[in-house]
Amino acid sequence: MTVPDTLGGIGEIATLERIFPRLPQAAAQLLGPGDDAAVIAAPDGRFVVTTDMMIHGPDFRLAWSTPRDLGWKAAASNLSDVAAMGAVPTALVVAIAAPSHSPVALLEGIADGLREACAALWPGCGVVGGDLSVSSALTIAVTAFGDLEGRDPVLRSGASEGDVLAVSGELGRAGVGLRLLFERGVDDLGDPDAAAAASVRADNPDLVGAQLAPTPPIADGRAAALAGATAMLDLSDGLAIDARRLARASGVRLDFASAALGDDPRLALEGGEDHALLATFPPHTALPGGFRAIGTVQAGDGLAVDGTPYLGSVGWDPYRGWNGASG
Amino acid sequence: MTVPDTLGGIGEIATLERIFPRLPQAAAQLLGPGDDAAVIAAPDGRFVVTTDMMIHGPDFRLAWSTPRDLGWKAAASNLSDVAAMGAVPTALVVAIAAPSHSPVALLEGIADGLREACAALWPGCGVVGGDLSVSSALTIAVTAFGDLEGRDPVLRSGASEGDVLAVSGELGRAGVGLRLLFERGVDDLGDPDAAAAASVRADNPDLVGAQLAPTPPIADGRAAALAGATAMLDLSDGLAIDARRLARASGVRLDFASAALGDDPRLALEGGEDHALLATFPPHTALPGGFRAIGTVQAGDGLAVDGTPYLGSVGWDPYRGWNGASG
Repeated sequence: MTVPDTLGGIGEIATLERIFPRLPQAAAQLLGPGDDAAVIAAPDGRFVVTTDMMIHGPDFRLAWSTPRDLGWKAAASNLSDVAAMGAVPTALVVAIAAPSHSPVALLEGIADGLREACAALWPGCGVVGGDLSVSSALTIAVTAFGDLEGRDPVLRSGASEGDVLAVSGELGRAGVGLRLLFERGVDDLGDPDAAAAASVRADNPDLVGAQLAPTPPIADGRAAALAGATAMLDLSDGLAIDARRLARASGVRLDFASAALGDDPRLALEGGEDHALLATFPPHTALPGGFRAIGTVQAGDGLAVDGTPYLGSVGWDPYRGWNGASG
Repeated sequence: MTVPDTLGGIGEIATLERIFPRLPQAAAQLLGPGDDAAVIAAPDGRFVVTTDMMIHGPDFRLAWSTPRDLGWKAAASNLSDVAAMGAVPTALVVAIAAPSHSPVALLEGIADGLREACAALWPGCGVVGGDLSVSSALTIAVTAFGDLEGRDPVLRSGASEGDVLAVSGELGRAGVGLRLLFERGVDDLGDPDAAAAASVRADNPDLVGAQLAPTPPIADGRAAALAGATAMLDLSDGLAIDARRLARASGVRLDFASAALGDDPRLALEGGEDHALLATFPPHTALPGGFRAIGTVQAGDGLAVDGTPYLGSVGWDPYRGWNGASG
């Protein structure tokens, strides 16, 4: 049996040499890693930028997510925010801090996941720079860039009474996947367990995969913008919470048709981390790509389901929702 | 005595409401925080990007740095990387993860430091977005953007035999400041101590300030580019280590004149975190801004001092150099 290389064992420079060849190249990269900064093309004279951190404990469990899952999800969740502006992703920078006892394979796997997610979700998007550091808590901070291709960004604030409310992507599945992991991806003491998680994932690849390695409909962000979407956002905290944000920003009420929310509308409304796109379109718009109508935009405020006000969902607060466990 | 508000006590939304008004506005901001992503102007069709994480323990001690210092240094070190490309800073995105028991004043102070550093170092640069999360280790991840104003970036690889080697900014002072903190900013057991650190800082404001809240010569990055600098980088790991990088990238030897390195050339060569700019210029260039000649570019490789090869400095490896202590 061989002992795996650790970050502390081989050091920063050797670690970087093992990661770099695995990272995806960005077509927009004019100057890549290796200098004080990178240079990225922004052909229309603007760029879209979003940043999101994933932290061991509150955001993921190493017993549940493979290293590849972590890289994939870090890329996917940020690309989804770029798409939600009606932009196309161009590049990422990635800062990772990991304990020095971590196996090098952890960072290699994260790099593989970044590469595979870019290849699957938006080929041509790549990693143009980053930072590698040490921390007691594995932390992945991704900043993602996008190109609006000359269009106006699609904001949360543009929905008008009479618009169609539509979604592209699955609703509620990532939330069910997380519930399955909490229920069955644990040992007898209730702690996250890798073997149990592998088993529940093998039995429910789509549901658990939706949670651990989501596949947001990146191309539908541009498609929505081209079709005239009046407002759009990425569903990260759950349909109800995020729809309420859109309703508030636009000064409208969003009325869901329960029949369009699947067998379990409550699940569709309350499940988090869908990384689907919620958008509004002018009436009679031919909905683009994977978008399907799920309701209408009305005068008023807040949410409704079949005309009845919907008051559920308070949302995840990282400072109150995390019990300090890692796993 | 009142108990200070904590992040867990008031929650994420109230915390954001207290931070946002403190953040600096960016002149290049076309769309700021509040949507899925921000939109930033990139008037010449490109943008410069760099990212850097600061982590409690390996990168700072809360007994030594004030919250304002942390925000200041996070901004300053990233702006310096932008300047080292010959660009001018335009905007930052900032992701912060903090323990839920942290006082809200910690994040308010970090925001104040970000604002004050931008105002002091490059007015008009501001924070256009970010992410707030929870972690057992306070982590500040900054991604900074810059505008090349139509110029080519100044790389590390462009130095030629016969060029003048020059620096803008102080050498060795930040390293002395850190040594003072390790020697005198501690209690009887050798652990970082706030009262002791305040005392040593009051006695040595310039040296300790150079370590905790550096003031890199941001404007001199553009000035160097306009004056025809052939190569440039930010001195973060110490003059010797970083100069060796420039020498390797350019395929040249850098020969320092010890008389230009102050009373203690070894200190100037070995002290880390100067955040000064090292650049090379064609012979007979009138050195711009705060640049002063410290040597020459010669055929060969590596470093020399007064013609004698210099082999010191192995550098900081985060995975080997951190003993796991926070303080």
